[in-house]
Amino acid sequence: MSSPTVLTIAGSDSGGGAGVQADTKTIQVHGCFATNVITALTAQNTVGVQGVHEVPSDFVKRQMESVLSDLPPKAMKTGMLASSSIIRAVIEQLRYTYAESERMPPIVIDPVMISTSNHTLLPSDAIGELCFGLLPLARVITPNIQETELLLRCLRAGKANQHHSNVKVGELVKEQEAGQGDRIQSIQHMISAGQEIADILQAEHLTVLVKGGHLPMSKEALKSSLRDVAKGAEVVWKGESNGADVEQEGFVEVLHAYRSQATDQRSNSEEEKYVVDVMVEADSRIKLFVAPAIKSASTHGTGCTLSAAIASNIALGKSISDAISEGIAYTQNAIISSEPKGEGHGPLNHGHISVRRALPVPSNNNPHPFVSHLLRSTAVEWQSYVKHPFVQQLGRGKLDPEAFRHYIIQDWHYLRNYARAHSLGAYKATSFAEIQAFSEISLHIARESEMHVEFCKSFGVSLQDLENARESPANSAYSRYILDIGVQGDVTELLVAVFSCLLGYGEVGLYLQRKLEDGSGEVKLEGNRYKRWIQDYSGTDFQDAVKRGIRTLEKRIEEDPPSPARLARLTKIWSDCVKLEAAFWQMGLDKS
Amino acid sequence: MSSPTVLTIAGSDSGGGAGVQADTKTIQVHGCFATNVITALTAQNTVGVQGVHEVPSDFVKRQMESVLSDLPPKAMKTGMLASSSIIRAVIEQLRYTYAESERMPPIVIDPVMISTSNHTLLPSDAIGELCFGLLPLARVITPNIQETELLLRCLRAGKANQHHSNVKVGELVKEQEAGQGDRIQSIQHMISAGQEIADILQAEHLTVLVKGGHLPMSKEALKSSLRDVAKGAEVVWKGESNGADVEQEGFVEVLHAYRSQATDQRSNSEEEKYVVDVMVEADSRIKLFVAPAIKSASTHGTGCTLSAAIASNIALGKSISDAISEGIAYTQNAIISSEPKGEGHGPLNHGHISVRRALPVPSNNNPHPFVSHLLRSTAVEWQSYVKHPFVQQLGRGKLDPEAFRHYIIQDWHYLRNYARAHSLGAYKATSFAEIQAFSEISLHIARESEMHVEFCKSFGVSLQDLENARESPANSAYSRYILDIGVQGDVTELLVAVFSCLLGYGEVGLYLQRKLEDGSGEVKLEGNRYKRWIQDYSGTDFQDAVKRGIRTLEKRIEEDPPSPARLARLTKIWSDCVKLEAAFWQMGLDKS
Repeated sequence: MSSPTVLTIAGSDSGGGAGVQADTKTIQVHGCFATNVITALTAQNTVGVQGVHEVPSDFVKRQMESVLSDLPPKAMKTGMLASSSIIRAVIEQLRYTYAESERMPPIVIDPVMISTSNHTLLPSDAIGELCFGLLPLARVITPNIQETELLLRCLRAGKANQHHSNVKVGELVKEQEAGQGDRIQSIQHMISAGQEIADILQAEHLTVLVKGGHLPMSKEALKSSLRDVAKGAEVVWKGESNGADVEQEGFVEVLHAYRSQATDQRSNSEEEKYVVDVMVEADSRIKLFVAPAIKSASTHGTGCTLSAAIASNIALGKSISDAISEGIAYTQNAIISSEPKGEGHGPLNHGHISVRRALPVPSNNNPHPFVSHLLRSTAVEWQSYVKHPFVQQLGRGKLDPEAFRHYIIQDWHYLRNYARAHSLGAYKATSFAEIQAFSEISLHIARESEMHVEFCKSFGVSLQDLENARESPANSAYSRYILDIGVQGDVTELLVAVFSCLLGYGEVGLYLQRKLEDGSGEVKLEGNRYKRWIQDYSGTDFQDAVKRGIRTLEKRIEEDPPSPARLARLTKIWSDCVKLEAAFWQMGLDKS
Repeated sequence: MSSPTVLTIAGSDSGGGAGVQADTKTIQVHGCFATNVITALTAQNTVGVQGVHEVPSDFVKRQMESVLSDLPPKAMKTGMLASSSIIRAVIEQLRYTYAESERMPPIVIDPVMISTSNHTLLPSDAIGELCFGLLPLARVITPNIQETELLLRCLRAGKANQHHSNVKVGELVKEQEAGQGDRIQSIQHMISAGQEIADILQAEHLTVLVKGGHLPMSKEALKSSLRDVAKGAEVVWKGESNGADVEQEGFVEVLHAYRSQATDQRSNSEEEKYVVDVMVEADSRIKLFVAPAIKSASTHGTGCTLSAAIASNIALGKSISDAISEGIAYTQNAIISSEPKGEGHGPLNHGHISVRRALPVPSNNNPHPFVSHLLRSTAVEWQSYVKHPFVQQLGRGKLDPEAFRHYIIQDWHYLRNYARAHSLGAYKATSFAEIQAFSEISLHIARESEMHVEFCKSFGVSLQDLENARESPANSAYSRYILDIGVQGDVTELLVAVFSCLLGYGEVGLYLQRKLEDGSGEVKLEGNRYKRWIQDYSGTDFQDAVKRGIRTLEKRIEEDPPSPARLARLTKIWSDCVKLEAAFWQMGLDKS
């Protein structure tokens, strides 16, 4: 249950869709713990950026110190780094903390340099610092196509010059903005660029993910590209069947045929486009992640989200390749499942991989969340059951012996069916442990039936009387209900159906015991003809069975947390049984 | 599925446990969308605050403008507001955006003024601005006991003076720090203070939640306090039974008895303490939320988390009272379920109300997440089934007629059991719609059995032959497996067990149809003695049944999302059936 720490170093987006906000949300829903080093504040919304407040680089450094010294991350990511002095501060603090570089946790670097509209977001000196100072520390870098081009320009120039400071980054940016020089226009180009970046950086472990979102292609172009691509590349199709091609591995006729009916018109359209993200690993293994291009206005913060998801997956112990593959799927689904927000490019739906728990986790404050839920949801019915007049009169020894006689005759019949319900549980079990637990209860009830016969004798009821008696309606209603639920549902439903009797008699036993001890005189054993009954249910044997019952149910629920719909079904069964139990006492009183 | 926007206006905690980070995490896991206005940056960790960078008030205002103009919140909260100029900026921007004050969304104000160690966190002029400027806009305020004392000092002084600017806040702070004047030392004091604050502010809708975390009390003190408290107050026990007292409503003997065994020693200890949060509503209704005091080092960001949870619950449409009650439970469980992090006061576990989805939500990209998951998890077995040599030979018309004869005899027996499995489904159904759907399939199969007999005749198999034939082992293995799963599990498990046959034959039908049309000659109808078989399964009737089957399963899964354990069980059933289907073809080929 441990949640590893993931540090994000990025700007703040007041609009909540990008920056540390997107990162924090992504990291949180991945089950990790997010820490934040903020490099800049923006006054921003879905329409645009209305203001920027840069954070002094020494305060960036101070934040780095605070989090790295006390909350060591399992993975890190960087986003918008704003200035060369901030990048230097980040590098210095990383080098200071991780003097032995092999102990540095993996960093995912999203080189936020060029916007979708081909606008350069970083000053030239910061771009140089990023390329020559920060990239060599990276475990994963996630440039888009334009950023890949610019990185490559810089890295090539760095390689050609004796010293990085000789590289005229400003001129390279101008060339990039003017569209001069080599441009990436195909999957093959993306692969080559990724390989060259990895080559120049000579990092032992570096994975370059060239994001192809800015290079959508038609189905035909995709197919011919895939044919031309080096044999070694593995093609990973993201999203079901994709309607891409029957040749693709894992193509399923039925899903392809029904996909268009389940989705909107877009997927049938002739113009469907595909995007490919190219992953180049340090050992030159290549993976192509292919997915239909998504038409959506909810794309603000896509790059932040992807890199934060990759960092989270790494922190969770996944391989780099899996971390990227799952990060891409997470981000795509976050776009697809988003709802419109704001006037411009809206945020992603970061929460799509979570569902709200129907029940809280067990805690010291609430160690039995399921049983507590059942009891709270039937508070009134529960009291009517466990403090029924039959119980009160029995405790005082004032219960009409004829009423009790009627009750124990019916109880004998009930117990036979109650044993059968547990045998049905054993039939439905999937493990020997479960078979054993159910069988032990059946066996126990069957054996105890002889004692029940003895007990009945003391009230003038013979075995003959027991066998001749007909099941009363209240008895049939209850015991046959349990058996029917047992057949109809799964083991958990069966366990809930038999639980009301177990927990209720346990409660009655303890309640009578406490009243016996509190000196109120409401319950007494002396001269009470029902003494043995009271002692049986307040005794250790029965109470231990109650404990086991509570534990078994809570364990099942913890291992298989129910959805709200399933919890509602279980609660309905419980509520029915509590009422049927009260009616069973009433049957005794009424001798009906 | 809409996620309402919640705005938090607060400081940033680089350590991720408090401030906008705690707020954003809390808002996210509540299913809301967080926007952030950052008032100050802190370099902070679990040990302390190592640095503060205050944000210029005009940049706070700019952030307010950006988010309020484009992303209107359903609720807001404020945390650390740092300075009087920032508070003024917040007030001005709220007044500007919501010129008609009744249209302003509810604001929860956590008046971050005094730390646990009784250290004043705001300058005097900011405290004045908060009391006289911001509080009148509040829907809910959540002061701790010291803050309640200071707020009351200021508000009383404000009432006594003609103008707020005459109030000497600095002197009041000194009195507070020196412990002079009225102190809150009991539940009754908390109630009176809350009432007086509401009184002075004269807000039509204002709820004051006086947090009692700094005033833990023994069980005896609690009991006597509760006796003394005005009759009108409603007592709400948070956490199961609490072990507080048998007199409390909803006390359950069995849970009380077993609580100590399920929890740590603390709950048995004589020293167990209780804390009470007092809620005073504008109409003077009072609720006391009582819970055992939690001993934990993971309390950093408790106030931020509570106020963010309350704001989220309000945004989700809950009443103020429910929003507070659920917010308290959320925050307590977040403390209780936290794991140690850092050297000092660690963060809460914000994610405890979420579980990771075992399956993605349906989307355009992946409209059949459950069926896709099943197919992906059995990719190899699935291909062995639907492209079995039996199918290939049948498509070419080259299948040994004796093999086919053996197969259709067994298939007749299989279909009888397959129909029974659907009748079992009808027995297990909970709605007429479901009974109808299952019954229609049973009926359809039973009716078609006559056509099956006709079809068999054309292969020289009489009804007599069918009835005399014994079930082959492969047939028994498969059909009896389905029936057993049907009895053992619930309706979803049964549906998965019958689904492999439906989806597989649908796939085979479409696959043969496509091969027929692609001109490869791999499948032909002319002169193919199995023509009718191919046409039956590729035909509209059967394919419509496949579509219905996919829809039914996906709908069930969407309405009742499985936990990972449950998904594993369903996947196991599917995988077993896919292999049993392949063995069924093989049985035909082998005439075994």
